[in-house]
Amino acid sequence: MAVDMNGSGAYAPDEPATIMYIGQHETQRKDSVTGELLSRAQSVGYDMLTAPITTSHFQSRVLATLQEHVNALGDSSRPESVPLPLISPLLPVDTDLTPEPSNSSLIAITSPWIDLASPDPLIAHISRQVFNLEVAYAAFCGINNVMVHGPVSADGTTQYARTVLEALGLGPYLQLHVLLPMSGELEQDVSADGTHLAELARERYTAPVDEDEEESEPELYGSWEAWNAIRTMCNYSSRLTIALEIPRQLPPLNLQSRWHSEPVRLLVLPRTSFLRNAKGYPVLAKMHQQYLTRFLRLRFPPWVILSDVGPIPPNDQDVVNGHLPEPTPAEAATTANDKPKDPVPHLRYLRHQQQTQPSRPPIERFGQGYQDYLQSPLQPLTDNLESITYEVFEKDPVKYEWYERAVALALKDLRETLGEGVPIVIAVVGAGRGPLVTRVLQASSKTGITVKCYAVEKNPNAHVLLQRRNATDALWNGKVTVVKSDMRSWPGHITSTGEAGKVDILVSELLGSFADNELSPECLDGVQHVLHLEHGINIPQSYTTHFTPIATSKLYSDLLSRASTDLNMTIGDKWELPYVVMLHQFDFLSVQPTTEEDPRTPDVKEAWSFSHPISPAILEQASKRAGGTTDAGGWVGGDGSNEHNARSCKFTFACQDRGICHGLGGYFETVLYASSSGQKVELSTNPVTMEEKSKDMISWFPIFFPLKTPLYLPDNAEMEVSMWRQTDDRKVWYEWVIEVYERVGGKRKKLGMSELHTSRKNGCLM
Amino acid sequence: MAVDMNGSGAYAPDEPATIMYIGQHETQRKDSVTGELLSRAQSVGYDMLTAPITTSHFQSRVLATLQEHVNALGDSSRPESVPLPLISPLLPVDTDLTPEPSNSSLIAITSPWIDLASPDPLIAHISRQVFNLEVAYAAFCGINNVMVHGPVSADGTTQYARTVLEALGLGPYLQLHVLLPMSGELEQDVSADGTHLAELARERYTAPVDEDEEESEPELYGSWEAWNAIRTMCNYSSRLTIALEIPRQLPPLNLQSRWHSEPVRLLVLPRTSFLRNAKGYPVLAKMHQQYLTRFLRLRFPPWVILSDVGPIPPNDQDVVNGHLPEPTPAEAATTANDKPKDPVPHLRYLRHQQQTQPSRPPIERFGQGYQDYLQSPLQPLTDNLESITYEVFEKDPVKYEWYERAVALALKDLRETLGEGVPIVIAVVGAGRGPLVTRVLQASSKTGITVKCYAVEKNPNAHVLLQRRNATDALWNGKVTVVKSDMRSWPGHITSTGEAGKVDILVSELLGSFADNELSPECLDGVQHVLHLEHGINIPQSYTTHFTPIATSKLYSDLLSRASTDLNMTIGDKWELPYVVMLHQFDFLSVQPTTEEDPRTPDVKEAWSFSHPISPAILEQASKRAGGTTDAGGWVGGDGSNEHNARSCKFTFACQDRGICHGLGGYFETVLYASSSGQKVELSTNPVTMEEKSKDMISWFPIFFPLKTPLYLPDNAEMEVSMWRQTDDRKVWYEWVIEVYERVGGKRKKLGMSELHTSRKNGCLM
Repeated sequence: MAVDMNGSGAYAPDEPATIMYIGQHETQRKDSVTGELLSRAQSVGYDMLTAPITTSHFQSRVLATLQEHVNALGDSSRPESVPLPLISPLLPVDTDLTPEPSNSSLIAITSPWIDLASPDPLIAHISRQVFNLEVAYAAFCGINNVMVHGPVSADGTTQYARTVLEALGLGPYLQLHVLLPMSGELEQDVSADGTHLAELARERYTAPVDEDEEESEPELYGSWEAWNAIRTMCNYSSRLTIALEIPRQLPPLNLQSRWHSEPVRLLVLPRTSFLRNAKGYPVLAKMHQQYLTRFLRLRFPPWVILSDVGPIPPNDQDVVNGHLPEPTPAEAATTANDKPKDPVPHLRYLRHQQQTQPSRPPIERFGQGYQDYLQSPLQPLTDNLESITYEVFEKDPVKYEWYERAVALALKDLRETLGEGVPIVIAVVGAGRGPLVTRVLQASSKTGITVKCYAVEKNPNAHVLLQRRNATDALWNGKVTVVKSDMRSWPGHITSTGEAGKVDILVSELLGSFADNELSPECLDGVQHVLHLEHGINIPQSYTTHFTPIATSKLYSDLLSRASTDLNMTIGDKWELPYVVMLHQFDFLSVQPTTEEDPRTPDVKEAWSFSHPISPAILEQASKRAGGTTDAGGWVGGDGSNEHNARSCKFTFACQDRGICHGLGGYFETVLYASSSGQKVELSTNPVTMEEKSKDMISWFPIFFPLKTPLYLPDNAEMEVSMWRQTDDRKVWYEWVIEVYERVGGKRKKLGMSELHTSRKNGCLM
Repeated sequence: MAVDMNGSGAYAPDEPATIMYIGQHETQRKDSVTGELLSRAQSVGYDMLTAPITTSHFQSRVLATLQEHVNALGDSSRPESVPLPLISPLLPVDTDLTPEPSNSSLIAITSPWIDLASPDPLIAHISRQVFNLEVAYAAFCGINNVMVHGPVSADGTTQYARTVLEALGLGPYLQLHVLLPMSGELEQDVSADGTHLAELARERYTAPVDEDEEESEPELYGSWEAWNAIRTMCNYSSRLTIALEIPRQLPPLNLQSRWHSEPVRLLVLPRTSFLRNAKGYPVLAKMHQQYLTRFLRLRFPPWVILSDVGPIPPNDQDVVNGHLPEPTPAEAATTANDKPKDPVPHLRYLRHQQQTQPSRPPIERFGQGYQDYLQSPLQPLTDNLESITYEVFEKDPVKYEWYERAVALALKDLRETLGEGVPIVIAVVGAGRGPLVTRVLQASSKTGITVKCYAVEKNPNAHVLLQRRNATDALWNGKVTVVKSDMRSWPGHITSTGEAGKVDILVSELLGSFADNELSPECLDGVQHVLHLEHGINIPQSYTTHFTPIATSKLYSDLLSRASTDLNMTIGDKWELPYVVMLHQFDFLSVQPTTEEDPRTPDVKEAWSFSHPISPAILEQASKRAGGTTDAGGWVGGDGSNEHNARSCKFTFACQDRGICHGLGGYFETVLYASSSGQKVELSTNPVTMEEKSKDMISWFPIFFPLKTPLYLPDNAEMEVSMWRQTDDRKVWYEWVIEVYERVGGKRKKLGMSELHTSRKNGCLM
């Protein structure tokens, strides 16, 4: 059991409508952005417009101020005594913007000709003033979405980031979107008029030469690395996001996934990212369409910004009046027939895409609204679940069907072993509202094998429903023995002659997102005394936990900003607790090398396993230790009665591409039953095997083990993850620690390590 | 001003006695450690003894239990069903220890034949039980110092560390000392009897082969790296320290310094670390003596443990009775004469060393008790200092002498400029109790140049003393004009005819440990209006800030364990504030490559500089901005009137050896006066230049900028440090961020970065 829907009617299996907000951007906008232009844009179907904050007049004024200063420096005998130039406040002629209610549909653009990362202190000083004036004015006008070009040079990234951090303080609702290419350079030319301050700096300033420095070609992950440095400096602020420019050629899948895992707020599609179809209409390539779809499935999909795809057309009336702009040759080709051609074909294409998005897989429909939403794991041993929680779990289209198959197989095998005529005793322990009881009865009815069925449940509220169902349900028909008991203290089967007997099949659904995290091993140990010693069968028979390192800036940022109390924690550390979460906006860090054709396969390791029933000798030792007969060697000085359920593991993950590790994604697999004939019924949430083993199962989200401090990985790093399932006499908890290495010349070189994280204070109570 | 002695009589310039506690250890102790043995040891001059916790009987019992289990596994058809073996509780015959008051003089030793880091789960399980039983029993007996051998293999270090962490929970006063070699292997053979569990594991267990793994020779820093992993996993617990074994050949200076910076609690000197002198007596080599001296100067020097240097001799009576053990050949040589030979020559030698330690440099005598003690920087602009604080500063043997020289030089230069007969106006601003006034009057008297002297002080309490001194001090003799005023609002010199005049020399002592951190630039800007525009001189004329990355696990651990309130912080983060601290147990991370002969020279970079007076044009611009006439471009949207005092820098530090960066050590240099004749009077706390510029100056301790999360550096790393002096209209603060790179094939590869640290919330108020 893993998904807490908070008891509301959030379960929404229907396909939600695809939301796509589309804006229009021009790198060299000629028209001033007025309410009139905006309403024309909206009338053709755009949702928003970008707007430069300042005019070319302002740029000229800044350049003149700069020139004056340079002249003064030249004339001065003591250049250091000349004060740095100040840009005086904006004049009406410096900006077309004014506070208006419609401004909420605008995205302000800071001047692209400044260089906040300049090594020239003068240029950096001027750029910072321009930037601060512009951002402050946009915020004053009520435009809270501001796009700013990324750093001009990698070398000045910290300086750039420091300025951006400061600007975030200029308005409480301000959102800064950093315009970045996926890799290499932007497709959009930002300094077309030749007056970019970076150019001026190059003319007047020679940076001190780092003796080891060399001009290197842009690296594939260079743009991502700059982003990572900026947001790290800005402490993962939720008000700092990315305006990602989509290039004509998408980079490799790994890098696509990386960007998909980052907070992309604006997806900038320049004209060059479109192809022309046979009819001359702009379309996106298949790969581009798929990448767009991935983004549109996010809980908060980015807004799409069409850049330089043509101006906002005049009013319909104007069209009638023939004031359309000159068609391009390709567009002209489509106007051969008589009907007026489409003035916004890119927009029309995207709207079409919006209407025709492929449907989502069941777990995404089911989990709609729960993507990347952190939940504390359930404590079903100490808390009683509410009916709605059960109801949600019971809607799984796969899980109960698979249980029925497993029970049927087990019944057939036991019939072989025990012979005809002996009724087989099945107990569903932790029966809840009874879905597994129904499946047991169906398996019995379909196989024709008679069963004596128990339903054991500790929750007194669910117990009421079980009794009612037994009385009213046609299939149950009063044949089920409903027992109100914690399974661990249930004395077990009583034969028809009133003697103590044994159960043949114990069916339970106690697994959590990380298999054993809701104490299935401890519960099944506790009920094993009712099971037949020789032929008793547990369904599930065994289960394994799995994990892999992931990057998830979204969850890290979320945890960073939340108070512990907000997460229902009274003790312990919010970083030292696994969370159940529908991982969505994240990236696998360790993947099998892929080609463009293959999907990426993450390297998910099996941490440890449990199988049931366990050896009676082990249970006997445990019980002696609990009784104090043997008090030696308890792990934490306790009696050690649960030490046989402790586990540990250590694995190395190869990580090809540089990245940041924010924690571990955890999954499970379970063998419900493997029959003597070789048939295996399995469930899996492991992304590598779930398709094959239990496609479309929705009952479990993954689990997330966070890192307090993200770990940086260079290219070709190795991560060594140590993990423990720890236990004392009262509870079970997990511990995890990660080390980073790289291999140089056959030798491993340590690069870093996390602290040891432990959920001891928030362990699961036995 | 930088040292806050908390107003007590802590100023202690006398040489403190050297403290050396010495214990005796035997790797294969034959005698059981009784009160009688201990008192014999103490009667010959030892302070303590080590004691094995368990006996060889216990070891035999454990080995028998292990063998039984291995036999059972062999006999069983399902080995996984055989429970893991349990070691039953200690029997009286298993241990010689018993609770006794004298136990506080014992250091318990856990069994050296266990392997907590074993890859064999069975051996690790057995070892953990032995270890836990032993540590718990030692703690029960009141022995809180427990020595444990370091991990057998590097591969099992995390598992080892996890066990050690657990053991720290076995007693609230327990101190665990991990026995480690400085490099490579221990000199002491711990498995002489051939029954080390690691050997048994090798026989029965083949570890899963990591396909890329290869047997590599031990690395120079391997032992340190293991320690670093262990203490990181144990979250820098103050109860986890090192028992460092000193080898016969000391490793390179860099590694010596590294260990010196770590929490070494026991310094283990095995017999092999001693040489024999010409007379056959054991002595330490020069290098070993120097290394010992470094440790003995720590605030809490480690205890010295003599290992295998011979047994505790019998009582004096026994010596008389001739029961001395057989002398070794070397010892026999020294018994040629008739007087009874020394049965504990190693101990005697160390006691002699203790008596003859070289005297400490003045700053260490002065700062005795303040090593590595974190203090918040003073806020002299907003707080008034107490008299004792002034008194402490006034005892500096160098600083005021240098001020007097600087004033004399300036007087001579001005006499040249102004000609004879014109009295030179000198103002001491921030005069405190008047030490600089006295120096000014002495310089005047020695040079024979008449001065008109002002003493300006804002502290009303110090003002009382200044007036009294003017009335009673023979040198002052009523000639000093004492002004009660904040220097920034002092109108300035009034000529004898009652007209407004200008000051010729402004003398101040406003520098903090990081030069500008107590707002000297802002204060001197504020008083510059009284200074003569053409020939006015500031003493100091200029100052620079300096810093270098350091490893200081002591300060990191200290900060980690302290509550913010404990550090007098009401807002902000304890990690985001520089601390004044006498750095002592620390290591420079970036040093010039050294040979054995050279002392290590740290790479200390100059961050930025200030010089006075500044250009009037800059002051004028600042005043316009403060007045709101020009409101553009303030860094944080303020008026920007102090923006000319903002600074920033970015430097790359090459770090040869792997290590952990815990922060930056900060220093300053100042030119008090550079005369026209080329003489320069300078002060420096920069470790590279302080000897040359102002040896034995005691007024300033360094400053420490901490990192919230320590940064790991591999060998040959580069650290890139960005630092800012930020300012708004009300305060000044610092920001710092560190990135780690390595250079692979000419390209820089990023390995990690810190967050941006800012002391904004605890900035220095203007």
